[in-house]
Amino acid sequence: MDGIDQFSTSGAYVHAGEEFTRDTNYIEDRITRDGVPGAKGEPGWRVEPDRYRLVVARACPWAHRATIVRRLLGLEDVISLGICGPTHDVRSWTFDLDEGGKDPVLGIERLQQAYFTRFPDYPRGITVPAIVDVPSGAVVTNNFPQITLDFSTEWTDFHRAGAPDLYPEALRDEIDTVNKRVFTEVNNGVYRCGFAGSQAAYDAAYERLFTALDWLSERLAVQRYLVGDSITEADIRLFTTLVRFDAVYHGHFKCNRAKLTEMPVLWAYARDLFQTPGFGDTVNFGQIKQHYYIVHTDLNPTQIVPDGPDESGWSTAHHREGLGGRPFGAGTAPSRPATEG
Amino acid sequence: MDGIDQFSTSGAYVHAGEEFTRDTNYIEDRITRDGVPGAKGEPGWRVEPDRYRLVVARACPWAHRATIVRRLLGLEDVISLGICGPTHDVRSWTFDLDEGGKDPVLGIERLQQAYFTRFPDYPRGITVPAIVDVPSGAVVTNNFPQITLDFSTEWTDFHRAGAPDLYPEALRDEIDTVNKRVFTEVNNGVYRCGFAGSQAAYDAAYERLFTALDWLSERLAVQRYLVGDSITEADIRLFTTLVRFDAVYHGHFKCNRAKLTEMPVLWAYARDLFQTPGFGDTVNFGQIKQHYYIVHTDLNPTQIVPDGPDESGWSTAHHREGLGGRPFGAGTAPSRPATEG
Repeated sequence: MDGIDQFSTSGAYVHAGEEFTRDTNYIEDRITRDGVPGAKGEPGWRVEPDRYRLVVARACPWAHRATIVRRLLGLEDVISLGICGPTHDVRSWTFDLDEGGKDPVLGIERLQQAYFTRFPDYPRGITVPAIVDVPSGAVVTNNFPQITLDFSTEWTDFHRAGAPDLYPEALRDEIDTVNKRVFTEVNNGVYRCGFAGSQAAYDAAYERLFTALDWLSERLAVQRYLVGDSITEADIRLFTTLVRFDAVYHGHFKCNRAKLTEMPVLWAYARDLFQTPGFGDTVNFGQIKQHYYIVHTDLNPTQIVPDGPDESGWSTAHHREGLGGRPFGAGTAPSRPATEG
Repeated sequence: MDGIDQFSTSGAYVHAGEEFTRDTNYIEDRITRDGVPGAKGEPGWRVEPDRYRLVVARACPWAHRATIVRRLLGLEDVISLGICGPTHDVRSWTFDLDEGGKDPVLGIERLQQAYFTRFPDYPRGITVPAIVDVPSGAVVTNNFPQITLDFSTEWTDFHRAGAPDLYPEALRDEIDTVNKRVFTEVNNGVYRCGFAGSQAAYDAAYERLFTALDWLSERLAVQRYLVGDSITEADIRLFTTLVRFDAVYHGHFKCNRAKLTEMPVLWAYARDLFQTPGFGDTVNFGQIKQHYYIVHTDLNPTQIVPDGPDESGWSTAHHREGLGGRPFGAGTAPSRPATEG
């Protein structure tokens, strides 16, 4: 959901004197097994192969979750992928990576068009990830925390053989609890540092972020994954922030007590996941850096994109196997090569 | 000489499309043993105790050289020290750290006044370090590369007992050669990255900088100091950039292939010097960060100063003693505590 929300229509991410506050209102429709509404009355759309298109940007951590889950579950054959370029203007993410600047399936240049097809007066930010109903061209949902959970729980008929259970029933309470803290303190915590509107707001945000990272380091020193002994939704949500940490959050957002490479437990944990099929092969460091450094002109007016950091460390041995655990539980690793985008 | 030069009177450090070019024209007067002019005709002023005041800012790497050399040579008793605050406005460095905002010896609020006393129409940048003739209140010189050499070679009558020879005659050619490359590629190289006016200028600057750092790593892997087997002027000039690397150049200037802490040879070398009297005790990380992040508003419009990096690593063991060498040659370490400023 990175990028454009009601706080950023003028391209201003930093508001003097203010703590950064994230808009958390989305189009909350859900895609469910039988098209039944969600428990809170969210409109339901029916799970159907080849009907929906997941629109992401490689740069965006919130969209990144969905690309990882889609790949781990083997949903590539039934949910297609549209990829916006790393930067956007104040109005919309765009399909500037595609031939002719148009998404080849939706036939649109700006993701905004799919939002307006759904709601002609859509007043909120144009965000990724978004799931678009291909027949009508309308956005079904951009409610990123629910999208990945529905991939895990509603699309089971279409999971690949050997797909892992990323949201096991017995662990949901614990996953939800961890996810909540990771969201407020880490996923959003880095933004709270970067978009702080005063020194005091930044100082407090920095303290909160590194307190949470210390907690995670402690937890992950003795277990390979965040919850249980296999990869779950919780690991995916933490990974998307960690993999961006040194590339953008450390310098651009001033999350600089230490680099990820200097936090030994988290660095080994992040490398372990990075080297697992579905994780590193969905990362594009170039697009990540371009997005943050080019779009946030109020933080980086020159729009110059750093050439560092050296990324070679990501492929080095992590030695986490000794902690036990099975990456995919009773399942297997995804075997298809990741070639999209 | 950091901060204000003719490129920055409007507060703009970055010029679109341009490579950063440093003004290298200074007031080239010299203070010499008998007041004789320099070899190129630079006006000469006589070495005299208690006559001159060295004006610096703790933030500034070019001024930092002079505070280190003054301390190593024990010139504190004969050349007093004036300390400007970490930030300045577009006109001048100021004595905002002093009671009443006035330098207690010169009685001025802005260093600019001492420049104007010397040249009423002084057209260039107001820079530190500057040496001021206390009786007249006029700047004698701001020619930073010469100031430290003259401390070493012209002020010998006032050196402390056991003062090291930081510019030994037999090694001057080699020191000059190393200094030249360190100046163009490293001391100024970090600025070339940070003030690059285009992506291409930055990319080229980044490449030049890290090529030079690789050369230095290779050289220092097998010898404790840059030239000969004791500390010389060459080490001092490299140190002042290295000690600022992670605090400001890595993030603020995008010199981010790796942090200093990730370059094992240079990190150990820098720690070795930092732990040597005269080096670490002249460093003020807080003022360094305030200067760069607050003054360069075209790079950091929010003026928020990062709370990182963690500085505790500076006091860890460096294990460089095994390379041999004697820090102060036939001399001894300065013993007085550094309490100024």
